Formats: sequence, structure tokens, C-alpha cells
Amino acid sequence: MKLVVLKFGGTSIANVSLIKKIASKVKKEVNKDYKVIVVVSAMAGVTNNLIDLVKNTSTSPPYSEYDVVLSSGEQVTSALLAIALDNLGIKARSWLGWQVPIMSDFSYGKAVIEEIKTDQVFEFLKKNQVAIISGFQGVTKENRITTLGRGGSDTSAVAIAAAFSAERCDIYTDVDGVYTTDPRIVKSAKKLDKITYEEMLELASQGAKVLQTRSVALAMKYNVILRVLSSFEDLPGTSIIKEERNMEKSEIIGIAHSLNEAKITLSGVPDKPGQAAEIFGALAKYSINVDMIVQSSSINHEATDITFTIPETDLIIAERTIKEIQNKIGFKKFITDTNVVKISVVGNAMKTQSGIAKTMFETLANNQINIHVISTSEIKISVLISSDYYEFAMRSLHTAFSLDA
Amino acid sequence: MKLVVLKFGGTSIANVSLIKKIASKVKKEVNKDYKVIVVVSAMAGVTNNLIDLVKNTSTSPPYSEYDVVLSSGEQVTSALLAIALDNLGIKARSWLGWQVPIMSDFSYGKAVIEEIKTDQVFEFLKKNQVAIISGFQGVTKENRITTLGRGGSDTSAVAIAAAFSAERCDIYTDVDGVYTTDPRIVKSAKKLDKITYEEMLELASQGAKVLQTRSVALAMKYNVILRVLSSFEDLPGTSIIKEERNMEKSEIIGIAHSLNEAKITLSGVPDKPGQAAEIFGALAKYSINVDMIVQSSSINHEATDITFTIPETDLIIAERTIKEIQNKIGFKKFITDTNVVKISVVGNAMKTQSGIAKTMFETLANNQINIHVISTSEIKISVLISSDYYEFAMRSLHTAFSLDA
Repeated sequence: MKLVVLKFGGTSIANVSLIKKIASKVKKEVNKDYKVIVVVSAMAGVTNNLIDLVKNTSTSPPYSEYDVVLSSGEQVTSALLAIALDNLGIKARSWLGWQVPIMSDFSYGKAVIEEIKTDQVFEFLKKNQVAIISGFQGVTKENRITTLGRGGSDTSAVAIAAAFSAERCDIYTDVDGVYTTDPRIVKSAKKLDKITYEEMLELASQGAKVLQTRSVALAMKYNVILRVLSSFEDLPGTSIIKEERNMEKSEIIGIAHSLNEAKITLSGVPDKPGQAAEIFGALAKYSINVDMIVQSSSINHEATDITFTIPETDLIIAERTIKEIQNKIGFKKFITDTNVVKISVVGNAMKTQSGIAKTMFETLANNQINIHVISTSEIKISVLISSDYYEFAMRSLHTAFSLDA
Repeated sequence: MKLVVLKFGGTSIANVSLIKKIASKVKKEVNKDYKVIVVVSAMAGVTNNLIDLVKNTSTSPPYSEYDVVLSSGEQVTSALLAIALDNLGIKARSWLGWQVPIMSDFSYGKAVIEEIKTDQVFEFLKKNQVAIISGFQGVTKENRITTLGRGGSDTSAVAIAAAFSAERCDIYTDVDGVYTTDPRIVKSAKKLDKITYEEMLELASQGAKVLQTRSVALAMKYNVILRVLSSFEDLPGTSIIKEERNMEKSEIIGIAHSLNEAKITLSGVPDKPGQAAEIFGALAKYSINVDMIVQSSSINHEATDITFTIPETDLIIAERTIKEIQNKIGFKKFITDTNVVKISVVGNAMKTQSGIAKTMFETLANNQINIHVISTSEIKISVLISSDYYEFAMRSLHTAFSLDA
């Protein structure tokens, strides 16, 4: 079965006239003899309005009900798109999460897809009809609605593309592809035609907002060919694919940045085994993701400093947690700093070329930009710097790695 | 199981602060050791907004998708009420139509409830939790969402009360009970403490907007004790009950009026068998309800006039239908009149007392109000009059039948 999955996000589906435009895009794929599954988000703004309704009703709502409220957003758009397609003479119907069904676990508000039962939708597609599946939602074994967390519609689309063995999964969004860096900050940023899963994953996890990390990881796992395209313009987008073995060029493909960072330093931590496990274990209990970690080596085996970064949005709860364990750990004091930004250089060049780190650090040094923390992965180098200089740093690095258009 | 069903309509649930008020009302019933099922409508205005979205997408939407859009309204309110109850320390959860399930037929947009499967909700109620069921919606055997048509939430509540053998079904609304007539027109209208199903049915079908005819008929069929109450004030409402055998008093209980009336007269209809069947059969094909019918007796067995009323909202399609059959029937011409109102006197007194009709006609005659058409039932007399005089007619009749407060 020659099948594509098309996913339309909130700004692409913000009103009825945009829904009609989407219907025309879908019609084009149908006319190319593709079987089409469309995955939709809620209209832009609707999910936030629904969240406000919940918050105004209770400051600590049960998430099982929160999900019932939120899932109504995609319910409406999937039916409206079916209506718009019917109006163009294309047979279509909406499939809500529980109708497919998209089976999830019981983690309301941030559920994980466990299985997509494809039988019914496959039967339906065979009749040459378009299946419109509500993104962002699933259903538990006990028949209760779940949502997958913010941005979960991308994950829905990729999971559906994998389950139905789609030829590709097109993610329509309000940008026209993946850029070497944020074009709002670096004017010379250029659009990439292709990028590997790993590179996209690093870009996404380092703050590029085009795709959710989770959906890219899922695409990589199941080898789903992803494309990021503009909903508004008819332009070729960026393909996200498996690294080709004979790909000769090894490159730096982009500069990412993340503003949602806070740095915490615990100083005078007694130097004995198990201390780090104690600290990060306490934070993990509250699902706080610790990112960059640096421990100064202690000269006299008495005390050490531990510095790490967390999402700035988790800072209040992290501070509370650290205060709770201060006596147990016995560190002297802790300092927090939110005036920091993480800048990452991403690309498979790291695997084969030496000197990437040198170029990065030199570029920053030549511009008098001080580095607080460094972390590296196979295809990424990240530095934490003062937020005063982050735009300047991005532009300098973009030029230094010859990424300018 | 000591169980009550409480139903809250759109204006009672129009915003979060009203939802919190409803939660308090529900808590009161829980504290009286009742098992409670709450049935909710969508927030006032939401259903109309959703209908607009559908209409702007297509002028001829498939009703199966229309229902998916519309049912989202009750989905949101039922979850919000569960959240508000949780906030008061009352265990509760939302039950969407498909979760109960409330099985309906396949008439999307105006579905009929076929069966309510009570097992799961009964199990849930035993754990002393409040079940909040979304009104207005059901699900087909093929797992697709249906809606019951406008005002269907009253029907949901009564059907649920019947299925769960509730002690009573309280309908909370924006009026504080059933009145002898519309208090906005007749200032001396008074609230009734009790009314029989049959009387309520006649009042509802004659234009009193307190309850849907359909829900009253269902309550009568299953002997569900109904109460109409104000959501906003703590007042005793009106009970709608079975007629008591030893009920001595026979009364006129109210004056109803309906503005949505159009009169059609076909003149010179050849006097031969089957003509009426032909005319009304053609109208029935378009689901046009014909109400009052008068046929003048033909003196010479040649031609006759047929006058009948239909809802004014169906007039355009009725005119088209009548034109189509004009040649076949061979009537001379037809006249329509929308400047008419139907006034009905309702009460079980009609069964036992003579002279009700006489009082009605005399009162109108004394006020120089001309009667176009008359129709009667066991507990009702209706007249069609010019809309210029309908308020005057209602006040005069209210006084003539000693209904003034």
C-alpha cells in the first residue's frame, strides 16, 4: 500500500479557511494515488484556552480529567477537516484516539503510546478514503482518554507512520524547513535539504523548535522518513533521513541554542562516594532533567564543587529539593544562575574531523566570550555562556563553521 | 441504591464560577447519602459556536462529523465539573457517551437512544463516587459518536434516570419552575408546584420552552419523577408526576403559545378520496410536521378547501412541495399566512368538565379576537389567531380561567 502520513500543526490549522487549504493539499496527495492518513493538532490557541479553563477550575486538577478537556481540541479539528474534504468530493472520516485505537499507558498528561491497532483504519483506507486521526491523544486499556504532552502530535504522526509502514511522514508547520540556526537571530542562516536523524535529534534537544525530540527519536528508531514543510508556501522542505553509508561529506550542520537553562553550583561537597547519586537521585524524583554536569577534581580529597544545568522552568522545585538534602550531603552552599544560554555546534563532522572543538572555543575566546560549562556528545559540542552574548556567539560560530548562506 | 440524577443546562454551566457552584449543589446531595449521577450540557454559547465552525467549513456537512464536533462541548464541561468536585474533596469522574456507553441508532444529528449499558457506571457508583455523564451524546454499534439533537441533554438525563432507576431526576435550568403561562407576557403568571406528565407534555409541545417534549414523553413512559428547578436560586421548583388517581381537583393548569406557526390554505381541491393523503404524504417526505388541519365540507361534492398549519421554519420547503403536487392534485390556488400564533389552554379539567371550550371561545369573542383554526386533544384546546392579538389573548384567557396569582 502506497501510503503517506501528513501532519498539520496548530498554526497550520488555526481557522476554517486554513482547514480548507489543508483539504486542498490532502486532495493533491490523493490525486497522486496515495493512501493518505492525516494527523491534526488543535487549532492554534485552543489548547491554551482549554488549559486556562482547567486551571481556573482547580490548581491541582486530576490529570485524567485534564486530558478529557484537552483532547477535545483535536477532536474538533479532525472532524472539521473531514467535513472540508467531503466538500471537495473526497471521502474522509475522523478517527479519534480511542476509535483507532491508539493504546497508551496510564500517565495522564504525558502518556506514552504502547500500541497502535491498525486493522480498522487499514480496512477503511482500502476503500480509498482519507483517515484523519486526532493527534496528541490516546486511550488506556480502561477506555480513558490520555494526552501525550505538549507537542505530542508530532509523536502521534511518526508513531502512526511507523505502525502503518508509511512511505514518508510530512510534518507541515509554520517554518519551511530546518535551518543551520535560528534565522531570526542569524540572518545568514540557510535551509538544509537533508539532515540525519541524529543531527536533527541533537538540534531538537538543544532548543531548535521545529520538531519535538521525542518524535525524532521515534522516527530514527523505526526508520520513518520525515519531511518538514511549510503549510503556507509551496516549497521543498527538509528531509530527515538515515545517514547514508557512502555519504562522503562530513559536516557541521547547525548551531542550536537553548534559553531555558539554569546553572546550579553546590560548593564544598564532601568528597566521598555516592554523593552525586544522592543529589541527582533527589532531583530525578521530581522528574527534573539534569543536563550538563561538571565536578571539579578535589586536590586534597576533602571537598569538591559540583555544577550542573537544569531547565529554568524547574528551578523553584530544584531549589526546594536541594535545600532538603543539604544537611544529609553536607555541602557548604549553593548558587543558582539563570542568566545563561546553552549554545551547541551539531554535525557528524565531529565523528571524523578533529579540530571542531578548537574552532569553537577559539571563536568564542577571540570574541571575549567566557565559557561556564562544556559538554560533548558524539555529534555535538555544547557550551554554557552568559545570555548577554548568546546572539553574538551564534553569529560568530555560524560564520566560523562556514554555514553562512 | 438511593440514587438521584441531576441535570444542568447550558446557562447553568456557562463559566467556571458557575461550574464551581454546581459542584457545591452536587456535594449537598452527596452529603445526604445519595448516589449521584450528574448530566451536563455544553457551556451556553459553545454549541452555537461549534455549529458556526461546521457551517463555515461546509454548507452540507456529513452529520457523522458534525456530531464529532458538537459532542466536544459536553466532553469539556463534564471533565471540568469532575475537576471542580475533586477540588471539593468529592471523588468524581467524567463519563462520555461512548464510555458509559449510551448506545444510539445511526441517525447522526438527531439520534435516538437505544440502550444504556449501566454495568460499569453502577460499579463506579458503588465506590461512592459521582458519575458525570455528558448529555446530548451517544455512540453507535460501530463506535461512532452521535448527538441527540437540540435540547437532547434533557432526554439524556431522563433516559439515564430510567435506566438507573433513579429516585428522581432534577432538571436545573434558568427558570425556577413551570408557570401557568409565560411570565414575560402575563405578569400575573404563577408557578405550579405539581403538574402531570400529560399536561407538561401538552405545554411543552405547545411552545413552553422549559422542557423538551421528547424528554417529558420519555419520563412519562418510564415513570421518572422529574423536577424543574432554578440553578441560580434555592427555591422549590415544579414536580412533574403521574396523575394521582384520587386527585380530586381537575384544573386548567396553563396557557401556552407558539409563535413558530404558518397557515396554509389550498382552495378548490377536487373532492375525491385520497387527496388529503396525497398532500400530507408529500409534506411528510420532507419531515414537515403538519399540526392543525381543517377541511371545509363540500356542499356539492365538487371542491373543498383544506387549511393546515406547519412550523414557520419549514414554510419555504413546504411551498416548493405544494407547487410540485399542484397539477397532480388539481387544486386552484394556495395561500400562506405567517402572521399567526397558536394559543392553547391545557389541563386535565378538559376530561371531566364541560364548558372549557365555551369559556375559551367566549373570552376571545368578547375581545373581538377572530379564530382561524381550532384543534383539540384530551387535555388541550388550541386556537390559531392573528399574531397582533396574541399577548392580549393570553392575558384574557389567564384571567378567565382564574389562573392569576
